Amino acid sequence: MTEQVGTGSAYTDDELHEDLRWWAAANYLTVAQIYLQDNVLLREPLRAEHIKPRLLGHWGTSPGLSMIYTILNRHIVRTDTDWIYIAGPGHGGPAIVASTYLEGTYSEIYPEVSLDEAGVRALCRQFSTPGGIPSHVSVETPGSIHEGGELGYALVHAAGAAFDNPDLMVACVIGDGESETGPLSASWKLPAFLNPARDGAVLPILHLNGAKISGPTVPGRTPTYDVTEYLSGQGWDAIEVAGDDPEQVFRDFQRAVDESYVAVRALQERARGGEEVEGIRWPAIVLRTPKGWTGPHKVDGELVEGTFRAHQVPLHGVRDNPEHLAELETWMRSYAPQEIFDDAGAVAASVRALAPSGDKRMGASPYANGGRVRTELPLPAIADYALDVDPEAPGATVHETTRVLGEFMRDIYRATTTADGGGTFRLFCPDETHSNRLGAVFEATARAWQLPIEYYDDDLSPTGRVMEVLSEHLCEGWLEGYLLTGRHGLFASYEAFTMVCASMIIQHVKWLQHAHELEWRAPVSSLNVLLTSTCWRNDHNGFSHQGPGMIDALIPLSPEVVRIWLPPDSNTLLSISNHCFRSVDHVNLIVVDKQPHLQYLTLDAAEEHCAAGASIWRWASTEREGGRRPDIVLACAGDVPTQELLAAAQLLRDHTPDLVTRVVNVVDLMGLLPPADHPHGFSDEKFESLFTDDVHCIFAFHGYSRAVHELLHGRPDADRFHVRGFMEQGTTTTPFDMVVLNRMSRYHLALEAVRRATWRPDGADELENFCRSQLDRHRSYVVEHLEDMPEVRDWRWS
Amino acid sequence: MTEQVGTGSAYTDDELHEDLRWWAAANYLTVAQIYLQDNVLLREPLRAEHIKPRLLGHWGTSPGLSMIYTILNRHIVRTDTDWIYIAGPGHGGPAIVASTYLEGTYSEIYPEVSLDEAGVRALCRQFSTPGGIPSHVSVETPGSIHEGGELGYALVHAAGAAFDNPDLMVACVIGDGESETGPLSASWKLPAFLNPARDGAVLPILHLNGAKISGPTVPGRTPTYDVTEYLSGQGWDAIEVAGDDPEQVFRDFQRAVDESYVAVRALQERARGGEEVEGIRWPAIVLRTPKGWTGPHKVDGELVEGTFRAHQVPLHGVRDNPEHLAELETWMRSYAPQEIFDDAGAVAASVRALAPSGDKRMGASPYANGGRVRTELPLPAIADYALDVDPEAPGATVHETTRVLGEFMRDIYRATTTADGGGTFRLFCPDETHSNRLGAVFEATARAWQLPIEYYDDDLSPTGRVMEVLSEHLCEGWLEGYLLTGRHGLFASYEAFTMVCASMIIQHVKWLQHAHELEWRAPVSSLNVLLTSTCWRNDHNGFSHQGPGMIDALIPLSPEVVRIWLPPDSNTLLSISNHCFRSVDHVNLIVVDKQPHLQYLTLDAAEEHCAAGASIWRWASTEREGGRRPDIVLACAGDVPTQELLAAAQLLRDHTPDLVTRVVNVVDLMGLLPPADHPHGFSDEKFESLFTDDVHCIFAFHGYSRAVHELLHGRPDADRFHVRGFMEQGTTTTPFDMVVLNRMSRYHLALEAVRRATWRPDGADELENFCRSQLDRHRSYVVEHLEDMPEVRDWRWS
Repeated sequence: MTEQVGTGSAYTDDELHEDLRWWAAANYLTVAQIYLQDNVLLREPLRAEHIKPRLLGHWGTSPGLSMIYTILNRHIVRTDTDWIYIAGPGHGGPAIVASTYLEGTYSEIYPEVSLDEAGVRALCRQFSTPGGIPSHVSVETPGSIHEGGELGYALVHAAGAAFDNPDLMVACVIGDGESETGPLSASWKLPAFLNPARDGAVLPILHLNGAKISGPTVPGRTPTYDVTEYLSGQGWDAIEVAGDDPEQVFRDFQRAVDESYVAVRALQERARGGEEVEGIRWPAIVLRTPKGWTGPHKVDGELVEGTFRAHQVPLHGVRDNPEHLAELETWMRSYAPQEIFDDAGAVAASVRALAPSGDKRMGASPYANGGRVRTELPLPAIADYALDVDPEAPGATVHETTRVLGEFMRDIYRATTTADGGGTFRLFCPDETHSNRLGAVFEATARAWQLPIEYYDDDLSPTGRVMEVLSEHLCEGWLEGYLLTGRHGLFASYEAFTMVCASMIIQHVKWLQHAHELEWRAPVSSLNVLLTSTCWRNDHNGFSHQGPGMIDALIPLSPEVVRIWLPPDSNTLLSISNHCFRSVDHVNLIVVDKQPHLQYLTLDAAEEHCAAGASIWRWASTEREGGRRPDIVLACAGDVPTQELLAAAQLLRDHTPDLVTRVVNVVDLMGLLPPADHPHGFSDEKFESLFTDDVHCIFAFHGYSRAVHELLHGRPDADRFHVRGFMEQGTTTTPFDMVVLNRMSRYHLALEAVRRATWRPDGADELENFCRSQLDRHRSYVVEHLEDMPEVRDWRWS
Repeated sequence: MTEQVGTGSAYTDDELHEDLRWWAAANYLTVAQIYLQDNVLLREPLRAEHIKPRLLGHWGTSPGLSMIYTILNRHIVRTDTDWIYIAGPGHGGPAIVASTYLEGTYSEIYPEVSLDEAGVRALCRQFSTPGGIPSHVSVETPGSIHEGGELGYALVHAAGAAFDNPDLMVACVIGDGESETGPLSASWKLPAFLNPARDGAVLPILHLNGAKISGPTVPGRTPTYDVTEYLSGQGWDAIEVAGDDPEQVFRDFQRAVDESYVAVRALQERARGGEEVEGIRWPAIVLRTPKGWTGPHKVDGELVEGTFRAHQVPLHGVRDNPEHLAELETWMRSYAPQEIFDDAGAVAASVRALAPSGDKRMGASPYANGGRVRTELPLPAIADYALDVDPEAPGATVHETTRVLGEFMRDIYRATTTADGGGTFRLFCPDETHSNRLGAVFEATARAWQLPIEYYDDDLSPTGRVMEVLSEHLCEGWLEGYLLTGRHGLFASYEAFTMVCASMIIQHVKWLQHAHELEWRAPVSSLNVLLTSTCWRNDHNGFSHQGPGMIDALIPLSPEVVRIWLPPDSNTLLSISNHCFRSVDHVNLIVVDKQPHLQYLTLDAAEEHCAAGASIWRWASTEREGGRRPDIVLACAGDVPTQELLAAAQLLRDHTPDLVTRVVNVVDLMGLLPPADHPHGFSDEKFESLFTDDVHCIFAFHGYSRAVHELLHGRPDADRFHVRGFMEQGTTTTPFDMVVLNRMSRYHLALEAVRRATWRPDGADELENFCRSQLDRHRSYVVEHLEDMPEVRDWRWS
């Protein structure tokens, strides 16, 4: 905390003019990236053939982003602090690329984009072109942990980066458009969760240039008084900076950053000194500058600067319109390129000298390349949490499956908590840690909470590090930011409501997919998503809470990234979790319910089973080694389907003992995909060793049944798989009624197995009659007794 | 506006005590629904066997919801106004059911739940039980347009109901949990869009009881001063009501509702009198009452009332715990059931008399059963917008496909706009109406906007009725509310970002699925979702903007509700839109791009094609009537896939003229499902007439390829379908590079067709060489020229 030099000190005219020069350089390179394929230093008059054939890019937000970068650079040099920069208006890709080029990080990472004329040409030609770089701030952008594209997540990513990084300052620019979104609107609640004693700081910069793509925005047209009230009501003290005169805005913004920094450090010092700070308030900056600032003021007689018309490419048709071409040249020369570049075409040393050095450059910050600072998670031995399952009596005991994961995570918290209360692991969960039976974590830490605490509250503390807020967006986004800055964690959610943030998970898969291809991006911990309170066992909450669609949302995405796990019991869950917590650069979807479920495997058996991805459960099959090959394969994936499938196998065993059955349990869903389509895809040999190549297979599946068909295409005789899964039938009812409604009950499965078996065994008639009569009985029984028939409620494998 | 009687008038002690009696009745029935299966009027001492075996339900929020209902009832009687009630804390299902039972609507709709002891018993036994009703406010609940389940959408549904309903008041209760969500947080921006002159009013009631399921909430623990600032900054004047003394809270809340009503009417009168009201402010109520108010104060020595412990069932194990049983009885008797019910077990006439009458009862409001007030949309003849396509030259012209829909909707706006500027149709679109080429609507109306307007703005007006806000959540949710109250509309979005609100669409499908089963719910207009700016043509925006996953998200849902349309060109889009705007109770996903695309069909041909769902395009096939059956089937669905498939067909025709090809275009994706699985599923006969039963088929598909396999399972020899689709490969690049990256280019398709055809025709070698050389050339060409090769860029069918 002793490094508070520079703050409050004068911003000299020389410094201002240096900064304006950096800014001109950044703006010049931004325009050049959008427009030029040649003559990139304007060393000759601009001609049509210098212009790219397709003009792609967003100018509007860029000058503001570059100004912020400029001032932050000076601030970093003065204070010797660590900052990262989240560019919410990710459209401004060329602006951030320009500044990271000026500071030198770009060329260090991408040597072909060298610091000379050839490099500038490469910089321009690669932008928004095939084989080049995307138009938005992206995984390719040095210093970025935030994809510019789908809007809404700037502030949650910033928050995630700040948690448990006490020395980090996160500048988070939020644009007009993003400020209208749901996730961003919710994320202003951060002061209720950010701990000034142990976390870093987030400095939101609400950058209002007033417009989105073709119209104004709500905050852009809301009077500053109201915006200030809005922020103040959520724990932010807003500083307004507004104007269109660069010198004035630079001075004011520089002061605003300084003041913010002083306020942050003062708050942190109080909290770190042991004071219990009440009514925490963090600084935030409301910055109003014109959209397309310093660009063409009018085009074809129409006002552009300061309006939505500056959003993308303000001068179009430049190749064919000599007037526009001339205007572009005038615009570009207004930045005095001859002063920006030296004779070799390198950025002038006087400009480059303004950047911070080494890892303090925002494009080079190790915080924003989290794999560089990531440490392995010190995982306790899972044997300590294993459920005691009698290997001679699988399926005879009942346990709330997720409890063991809570105990495992409790000790991960303990193993990673530092002496001063920080750490490298967090659990994020809407408001359901207890409900999801993960409450053991509260033995190690509490929920993070900076607002008042009442005597009757449980597990709530300013120093708590379990993150609960009733927003899947916030939970998931915070975790993303936490992981991308090198830490570890898990997002636990009600299965159905994970769809609320499905698009965020999809965008993160896209990020990891591209990050994977960049060697300079060190691997980060996987995004682990626990889907619990699943469709089958939200019998008490009803249809809105019943939906296994996240599986379908992830199946088509990058096979390099996506993993879907369906552990059937506690010990398999432990084994899978242990694997997922070690893995990097994946998105692991773990689907398992929290209610009491049958427990099948010892830890050893579970480890072996999970490593295989799927195996034959001999103890449940009537197939005998060296005996006849199966007449029917009974497969299952997921806890409730496994239970029903086993009950069906038992019915078959007892009623049709001559039928040879084989029970297969699948834990690693992606194993069903052909090996060419997914690295986990079971080899043809393995697939056939499980499912044969021609015997019919009854498959009880946790999710929508056709998802399995989607995966099985390409497997031998895929039509022989008869999948029962969630058929989107639900309401508030009993657990067994759920499987009946969706025709996945033991009786449905047994009926289907008899029908599809290679021959009709003795006892088939009786079995069919029994199944049908049970199904008939079921409904009238539950309507009368308001609970399930005892024979299904209390059923165990034996 | 003359009906402002009663507001500000005294709330007498008699009235207060009447209201408290209604409230006691509602609370009694709430507890009874959660706990009792018998002895529901407590006419004998409570015994264990009267208690349900499973205790499911949420007590915590219920007393507050019931108090609000009570006071609104009196307000409606006094002012003779139309209100509907949105219960954001939908957990409080039993509370809303109780009040609709007390007011008589419940028994009118469900006669078996009669107004006598048998009816009360049925009411209790049906709650949260199989064959009964869900535990949450749901589609079964009279007067509801809002499913209690996934939180976040109360205020957007309320807003949608209020748009264009000038006489309607929408009470919107927002609970603690919901207030933390993203969508709800964003929806406070409503005052920027709600027009006091032409729209109805929304009265938000932020009901803070301080806790969610197991902890406090941010607004629940935020000082009222801050909450007030937060709301004020967004255009709401908050009135606080807080306390735990029922008499005091009832008086205060009654006054708050009165004051709010007066403020609303005053604002509306000013606006409706022609005044341009600046700085519009709407009233909102912040209500703080204890969670589980009037319930058990302590249980087993632990504080329950006012804490998270009152969330669900405050007394558990009542069957086995005599103390809890006694406490339950004491609690229930505290509501004096003997005064609520008459000797026959009917609700006392003095209580029932407090309800408004007829359709003014909130459970009976026609506004909340929108199909009852819905009028057919007066659709102009689509021939007026048809694109002139030469039937002799399909695929020879180019047009921005979605433009015709903009023109169509412009005239729908015109046809539905009333003399005073209201209407029954709205377009909702993040900020992309122009970008999506739907801008013609602005010839009929402007964007809705109540904030300041600048001289350089386009198409912005307080009376505008195009809804643009950069939030898919708001757009989609507003439209849901608009449709459920009997109107019509369309939500247009960038394809990838529709995933942002995927969970909302899924929940709406669930709503319609259940509504469909209830005869008393009159059909409402379908939710029409236009997915444009699609994955293939977001070449300029990059990977984050490229994702066809909405298709996968909808496929597994209710076949009664879900329709997916892939029109290949303008006239098919017109035909499909025309159909969708007439349809009811569906969710129509229409996937079509906005960029210039080849146009194939005349309107007549398009109408025929769309009615068929899929047809053979003879003009593009080399198959001749009476000739040999095809050697290969070339199928396509979606605009870009159709173009590439046709280009491949042309390559085959030109290079391998002896090969008999058949081109099939699919518009109605659900036609691929077996008819048993979807009402649109093509019959076996039709399917074979299109695809044969054994010839291999190359299928170019808009979305992820395995989605087609998911649909085709169960069709004859489904393995012979070779689908090329989006493979999750993307970046900022050229349009043709996108199809190359995803291996769906004409060259890939032609190569695959030759490989899969029944025989190897002359010319196959040359064709393969040509395709491979073109693919080789492509990448180096675009890297050099920064645009696509002219032969693909300028390709036309001929």
